[in-house]
Amino acid sequence: MLYFFGGLWQNGNCLPTAVTYPKGFLMIGDLDQLMDARQLDAILVQGKVSGNPPLIYMLGGVHLTHAIVIKQRGETPTLIVGPMDREAAATVGFNTVLNTRYRYSELLRRHDGDSLAAGVAYYDAIFEDLGVSGRVGCYGYLDQGYAYTLLSALNASLVDVELMGEFKGDLFHTARATKDAAEVARIREVGRRTAAIVRDTVAFLQSREVDDGRALRKPDGSVLKVGDMHGEITHLIAEYGLEDPEGFIFATGRSAGIPHSRGDLEAPMRLGEPIVFDIFPREIGGGYFFDLTRTFCLGYAPSAMLELYKDVLDCLSTLKSAIEVGEETRSYQQMACSFFAARGHPTVADDPSVQEGYVHGVAHGVGLDIHELPGFQDDPSNTMTLTPGHLFAIEPGLYYPDQGLGCRVEDVLWIDADGNTHNLTDFPYDLVVPMKKRTV
Amino acid sequence: MLYFFGGLWQNGNCLPTAVTYPKGFLMIGDLDQLMDARQLDAILVQGKVSGNPPLIYMLGGVHLTHAIVIKQRGETPTLIVGPMDREAAATVGFNTVLNTRYRYSELLRRHDGDSLAAGVAYYDAIFEDLGVSGRVGCYGYLDQGYAYTLLSALNASLVDVELMGEFKGDLFHTARATKDAAEVARIREVGRRTAAIVRDTVAFLQSREVDDGRALRKPDGSVLKVGDMHGEITHLIAEYGLEDPEGFIFATGRSAGIPHSRGDLEAPMRLGEPIVFDIFPREIGGGYFFDLTRTFCLGYAPSAMLELYKDVLDCLSTLKSAIEVGEETRSYQQMACSFFAARGHPTVADDPSVQEGYVHGVAHGVGLDIHELPGFQDDPSNTMTLTPGHLFAIEPGLYYPDQGLGCRVEDVLWIDADGNTHNLTDFPYDLVVPMKKRTV
Repeated sequence: MLYFFGGLWQNGNCLPTAVTYPKGFLMIGDLDQLMDARQLDAILVQGKVSGNPPLIYMLGGVHLTHAIVIKQRGETPTLIVGPMDREAAATVGFNTVLNTRYRYSELLRRHDGDSLAAGVAYYDAIFEDLGVSGRVGCYGYLDQGYAYTLLSALNASLVDVELMGEFKGDLFHTARATKDAAEVARIREVGRRTAAIVRDTVAFLQSREVDDGRALRKPDGSVLKVGDMHGEITHLIAEYGLEDPEGFIFATGRSAGIPHSRGDLEAPMRLGEPIVFDIFPREIGGGYFFDLTRTFCLGYAPSAMLELYKDVLDCLSTLKSAIEVGEETRSYQQMACSFFAARGHPTVADDPSVQEGYVHGVAHGVGLDIHELPGFQDDPSNTMTLTPGHLFAIEPGLYYPDQGLGCRVEDVLWIDADGNTHNLTDFPYDLVVPMKKRTV
Repeated sequence: MLYFFGGLWQNGNCLPTAVTYPKGFLMIGDLDQLMDARQLDAILVQGKVSGNPPLIYMLGGVHLTHAIVIKQRGETPTLIVGPMDREAAATVGFNTVLNTRYRYSELLRRHDGDSLAAGVAYYDAIFEDLGVSGRVGCYGYLDQGYAYTLLSALNASLVDVELMGEFKGDLFHTARATKDAAEVARIREVGRRTAAIVRDTVAFLQSREVDDGRALRKPDGSVLKVGDMHGEITHLIAEYGLEDPEGFIFATGRSAGIPHSRGDLEAPMRLGEPIVFDIFPREIGGGYFFDLTRTFCLGYAPSAMLELYKDVLDCLSTLKSAIEVGEETRSYQQMACSFFAARGHPTVADDPSVQEGYVHGVAHGVGLDIHELPGFQDDPSNTMTLTPGHLFAIEPGLYYPDQGLGCRVEDVLWIDADGNTHNLTDFPYDLVVPMKKRTV
């Protein structure tokens, strides 16, 4: 799934310039190193576990309802959970404390029902119990207003503890940017299934009958629409044991030319029109994503489409051959822009709000989020360089919605410990999908 | 899915005592009223849309990547999105502005790559452009440290705007606590599919052969295990077009006695053992949840289990007949505790950390979150009363893990505009599931 570098939440989380980690991968065990670089005495990771990558990462995927994890530098983390989660919590391997120990209800009574005052007393009790003091980095997804209120109140009340946040390139995004063998194995498996879904989708299309208006037909004779394909693909994702929290893109014609259009559900499936199929499912229960895009034309491709597609494939191939440890990530965005500009296309390098030509970012890390570090945006705050362990989707594309043209091709690459690049995407690049049945 | 009132994140978000909304339902159109009660001049709702209920609620379920929504009191909201989301954004019905208008990349260059300084300038530009000033309530899920850093920096820099958060019973939780007809229709449909999943699961179990050790067998003659049932249920959830972000509970024997145990995957399915099946799937793409629990015994139920089950069903029936608009929600938790105590069971009222008897909360609102308002916790901060529009799961249960016993029964109720209660759960209460095949 492609990403646009326009707003504030771009995948432009970048490694702090002063800190480099050239040797090997950063893994969960390296949290101490990351805490040290940030002069943090402890980290506090909390919230609902579901949909909360920092907590999912800390807990190694063990499913709990809510959790507070506190890790002091150099120490085993402590996991604070409700009594009903005690069994699952025991499998995480941290020190486990039941939250009843800190008697929130009693604190609430003592503070006459003032939940914020009771909340402050609750964390105070936890920090004192665990001997936490000094600078504490706070992570994990919460309602922003709730987080601001809580952390402000804690900082106003607590004497020995200073709670703090990070704005970009935070500890967890940094740790997650490099993948270890276990993570890569999981992502590879999601990739295998994702490719199977695309393969089955193509096979489904190939087997349709086509009417004399070049539209595909369903077995009952009615026209096959993009919406029918959405249903088919949703079914395949479930069948392959994946979930689809972000929603795929299966768009044709003009919609294919608008990168984030999911597709016009009422449009008929027709020969010769570009189909952009960008699918990014995830392990069930909030695990690792994969990301795969291919562009197809059923039956034949118009010559304008063939030319566009060649430019995109050539760009992908140029970019892939330039992947190298130590290279600045922003250079690949520059490279894509130069490449397309040389072939006569407008690009975001000339105009950030361009809506024709090359209009988005070239690559993004993939993991527990569909967009994570490494970031590839071409701006001065991005000083990131490629390192072993980086795993990212690379996805050049060209879009001319007013001509009904759009295409994008996306592979997932991983750089191993020796600096070798592996393509985790096992799917051919053929644009034209030959139909198997004759016109009816 | 049941909830425990032990930690800080309980479903104990409660309506501020000073504000009451006795007439009709609170719907999305009532945001002005809620802003007024909080003396907010504007609200800022932002973040990734996926997994972010306040944004999903604001956008009416339209799928975008990231969004900033700003609504001033009495005005139509403004939606700020990336150019690639422009098509989907146009369907929301708000004023739409492309985020490229605020030139984040240029701000980043102007601030020498300091992303926080550029972020402050970015919001400053947005507030000035939209004429936002005064008290601005902030909502939507973000990394807590990111939110704290951003909101603190904005408040330190901006003169005309004061950003603030809410800790409990916030504007969105309050608005979401009452459901309108369209929301109820969607939840009802999820309920219909959820009941069908449970029905198919029961039918699957009934059709298994049983060996002379009372264990169920698969067609290949091997023992049917809890883990096999988990696979079966996962498949059914997908087949009925739902997703399962929180993970269901299908637990037998001792695990059935531990409320949040998902089940011991290696345990064989046996006649006469309690099965607690608590399933809470959601509309695909992050919509509304349903929540259904039943307890079953295959073939027969031991007498201890029959007695326990009768206590739970009697409690449920007592609670349901006491549902009334105007009643304090905490009174139902008290009622459940008194009921079970009178039948000789230990309860959380006597000891909040009790692990036998009645050990959790009796009810919780259900909607875009599986646990939301109304909250039913029995503590002094909970002054909430039942109102028309409330929709909640009610789920008494009893647990004796050391005896291999546990049971829970859960229905979803909705109070309509006239104050009448509707049971949205269409599933019988039979404990014993008769087997259809003979012992092999």
